[in-house]
Parts: sequence; C-alpha cells; structure tokens
Amino acid sequence: MIEAVAGIDIGGTFTKFGIIDKKGLCLKANSFATGSYSDVDKFQKHLYEEIQTMKSSLNKRISLKGVGVGAPNGNYHRGTIESPPNLNWKGVIPFAEKFKKYFPEIPVVLTHDAKAAALGEMLYGGAKNMNNFIVITLGTGLGSAFVANGRLIYGHNGLAGELGHVNVKRNGRLCRCGNRGCLETYVSATGLKRTFSQLLKSKSGKSNLRNLSSEEMTSEMIYNEARKGDVLALEAFSMTGEILGFKLADAVAITNPQAIFITGGLARAGELIFKPARKSLEKNLFSVFRGKVELLPSKLKGENKSVLGAAALIWKELN
Amino acid sequence: MIEAVAGIDIGGTFTKFGIIDKKGLCLKANSFATGSYSDVDKFQKHLYEEIQTMKSSLNKRISLKGVGVGAPNGNYHRGTIESPPNLNWKGVIPFAEKFKKYFPEIPVVLTHDAKAAALGEMLYGGAKNMNNFIVITLGTGLGSAFVANGRLIYGHNGLAGELGHVNVKRNGRLCRCGNRGCLETYVSATGLKRTFSQLLKSKSGKSNLRNLSSEEMTSEMIYNEARKGDVLALEAFSMTGEILGFKLADAVAITNPQAIFITGGLARAGELIFKPARKSLEKNLFSVFRGKVELLPSKLKGENKSVLGAAALIWKELN
Repeated sequence: MIEAVAGIDIGGTFTKFGIIDKKGLCLKANSFATGSYSDVDKFQKHLYEEIQTMKSSLNKRISLKGVGVGAPNGNYHRGTIESPPNLNWKGVIPFAEKFKKYFPEIPVVLTHDAKAAALGEMLYGGAKNMNNFIVITLGTGLGSAFVANGRLIYGHNGLAGELGHVNVKRNGRLCRCGNRGCLETYVSATGLKRTFSQLLKSKSGKSNLRNLSSEEMTSEMIYNEARKGDVLALEAFSMTGEILGFKLADAVAITNPQAIFITGGLARAGELIFKPARKSLEKNLFSVFRGKVELLPSKLKGENKSVLGAAALIWKELN
Repeated sequence: MIEAVAGIDIGGTFTKFGIIDKKGLCLKANSFATGSYSDVDKFQKHLYEEIQTMKSSLNKRISLKGVGVGAPNGNYHRGTIESPPNLNWKGVIPFAEKFKKYFPEIPVVLTHDAKAAALGEMLYGGAKNMNNFIVITLGTGLGSAFVANGRLIYGHNGLAGELGHVNVKRNGRLCRCGNRGCLETYVSATGLKRTFSQLLKSKSGKSNLRNLSSEEMTSEMIYNEARKGDVLALEAFSMTGEILGFKLADAVAITNPQAIFITGGLARAGELIFKPARKSLEKNLFSVFRGKVELLPSKLKGENKSVLGAAALIWKELN
C-alpha cells in the first residue's frame, strides 16, 4: 500500500491529472480535452472516473490521501474557480466543494494554476531551498506566483500575483480584461502572435507564415520558423523577451527574489526568449539587484509539471 | 519603573529619536541635524548622550529594553546602512554593531526606514488588523515597504520594497541611481519640483514661484502656492498623484494589499496628492481589484511617526 495524492491541472485546452507519491514521483498521468465538458458536473464525474481507472490500473495498491487542483483564476481560500476567461464555465464555480462529494474522506484543495506551479517548484523543482522567488507561466496568458518569506503571497482577496496585468505601455494593446497595455498582451503565446503579425504587416522580410491568417497561426509555428532562421520570427521572440525582462525588473524591485522560474508552453522556446529576457532584466534592474537574480527554466522534470504543482499543493496541506 | 524602548529615525535632514512605551505612547521625542556629524562615531556618541539626557529628564524611571533604528538603505539582516544616497556617510556602515557598544545589555536592531514605518503602522497605526498592506514614504525620494501574510517582505538580499525604482517611462527622467524613468524621479519632493519646473518652462501661466531657481524652490513652497490656487502648482500635484496611482496599480496586481498607506513630508499635501492618486489607481487597476484597495494617509498620530516605526521594530523583536 503506497500513500499518494491526485494532482489535477485544469487548463484552457487540456485537463491533466496524475497520481503522485510523497517524493514527487508521478506514478501515472493522463489528460483529456477540457472543452469536452461544458457542464462542470459532467466534467467532475468524468474526472473522478478517470482517476479511479488510473488508480486500479497501477500495479501497486494506492491509498489516496488527498486531491490537489490547479486552475486558472482558482481561489485557494474559497476553493472556487472565478470567471475563468479561457474556460467555458461562467461565473464563480465552487469546484472544490462540489468535487468533495466524490472524495468525502480526504481533503480536496484548489488554487490558482501559477500558485500550484510555484509550490511544485518549491517541493520538487529548482526552488527547494528558496524562500523568495517568482514563477511565471507563459501560456495563452501570463500567470505568476510570488513566494516571500517561504510562503506564497495570496494577498487580501487571494488574488495576488497578477503580473499578466501590470502595464507595459500607456494606451498599449487592448487586453481581454478591458485595460490597455497589460503585460500578457505582449508576453504570452497570444502576445507573441500579435507581435509577429504586426512585424509581418510593418516589415517586408520573407516569411513562410506570411500568408496565414492570425487564426491559423500558432506560437509553435512562429517558434519553428524562428529555429529555421526566419528573421521576423526571431525578432518577435526578441521583442517578447525584452518586454518580459523590462517588467520583471519592476517585480524584482518590489520582492527581491533569489530566482525567477519561467514555465508553460512558451518557455519551451528556451534561449529564444530567455536570452533577450535576461539581457533586458539586467539592463533595467535597479543597480543594487544587478547580478543578484537568476532567470531560469522550471526545474520540474518531464511533461507533467503542472500536475506535480497540483500534487505539491495537497502534500503541503497534509504535512 | 516603566519598560520602554528608544526609537531612532535617521533621515537625510534630521535624526529624530524618542522614548516609547509598550503601548506606543511616545514619552518624549527630540531631533538634531544629521548633517552635523559627518563621522558616524561622533554621531553615535552624540545620539547616545541625547538618549541618556532624555531618559533622566523624564519624571518616571525608565528601564530601557532595546533600541530600534530606521535608516535610509538600512539592512535588517546585517544591521548596516548601505551607501545611503542622502547621508554624508559612505560605503557600508555597520551601524547596529557599532551602536551596540553603548547598549551592551539590550538588543539594538536596525532596518530600512520605510520598513520601520510599516511596522509602526502595523503595531500602532491603521494596519493593526491587516496582514497585507503597503506603506509608501514620500520624502526626498520614494521609499516603500510591503507586508504579505502578516510579515514584511525582505526578499533574498534584504532589499525588497524598492518601489522608488520601478519604471514609469522608458527613457524618462534621469534618476540618481543611474537608470531613467524611475518612479521617484516623478513622485517625491524632488520629483514634484522637477514636474513644476517643467510646467513653468513649458507653460505661460502666472506663478509667484516663476523667478526662483530650482535650488531655492522647495516642495513646501509649491504646496503653499497650490493652496492659494496657483494653477501650475495644482497641475504639478495632479500629475504627481496620477503617476503614483498608475504605478501603485502594478504593485496591487502583484501583492493584492488591503490598503496602501502614504506617509512622509509630501503626504502632508493631503487631497492635493491623494485625490488624483486614488482616481488614477482605480482607473489603472486590473478589474478584479477595483474597489478593493484603500489609499490612506498614515494613521500614526503626531509628529513622531518615524520614531514610532523604529520603536515598533524593537518591540516586535522583544515579543
């Protein structure tokens, strides 16, 4: 009999889930399309059945001690998912309370996906001995989580860590939040696409992506072309990294972290984004912080980083 | 016999000190010009003698339990004052260790002046029941301190809270730190003077201060003229508050505070700065934070706010 937890990461596209032991070893993981379930009740029923099937499929007997969930706009204090912009579900969803009916005897805990990522980094990744660090998740949007004095900053309403909505430029790009110039309109998969489209319009250089509509284009395509030497695609990455470093300098001035970890889909572009971001961060830092903060990729291993984060959330709760 | 502590606030212009009881009552306070002592040893000797004199002058017998010091660029972890830009002392000064020789039997603790102000607000002021708030000190420069989860954010190197050096504008005003566009070049007594001087140059309106050199001009003069209806002085305050609110919106997105307290010389301008700052803050906030954060003057009473902050530092240590 092995003690383990279920870690669940609800994403805009996929919901990933897995069974994780105390050492952070993911015994098994799987995923399904979040969008297949427009109804939260059906989604939870399916998710529960998947976890049960996964448990029985393991060749060890599992004693499930708890369930950890990471979700966009997840509120740790209330266990709710609140008006998630990238999910079909509307309003305030009491996700943890509802899901609890499938697990009446063990704790079900939910938090913001970026906060789960930070806990994963702290328990199993690169932040094991760190008390002050930042995690940035670069996906459709930009998520972030701040750890200070060894604890996640939740803030007064549980809403801290919205670095995606700090201002890059007055009257800048329109954000889905209604404001203009938010960081995530520049630095995210969507932001990269906007930058690249602008470059295609304003510059005449050759590009294999020139004839695609913005709906057809993906950040992965831009990445693939950049790797092949597409000058405009390289410039789009360079501009994205530059803006990221510029605004991280502000975040460092406020919280003086030891390191900043970047994770999520766009982080897979590696040095294409890290190199300009590091250069811009150092350049824009207040002098006392120069050379004192590392910009690093997540040190969580494998494809199930976000599931490990959700597992870390519940293990932390159980200890 | 009353238990009390000595609270000391070392400022660019004045050093204030006082004797404070456990309830935060300032039994007596005094000050002298910091600049009179270019040598730290002589400064400390004088300060010690002043405290002894003050103690004996009280009509109650005092048992001094500790000494708290707030200073610009004060480092709590090391007890040092590090390259303070507005003091005559250069380099890294081991202030607490040196001062300890006068108080061999009680603790001597030092921190950054804005962090002392935040502790004062938490123990004796408006943040008594708050776990998440920000304190901004508006003087020659802009200092700040962030409290999250009920604790001051010190960061990895003890340098967190440098909101004075977040960027307002690319290639903006040159800051004494070497960067361009730092918040304190716009929002501080010095920033207000720069804004007002620019307005005098670029606009033709009448002003009693038009013939003064920038050396002769003080932020207090601009305040007095604004109160009398000087249109350009009013505009300078309005612009200062607008920029403050704009950058506070970023700080709220990161730490989600319950309130932001503004203290220091420039905060005395009251609504001249609070009104435009509040309006700009609300306008620039990410929607989820709107209506959720208060912008308030410090609730510490009397003229000795900074001394109370330094006293709070040491009382907190003793408890």
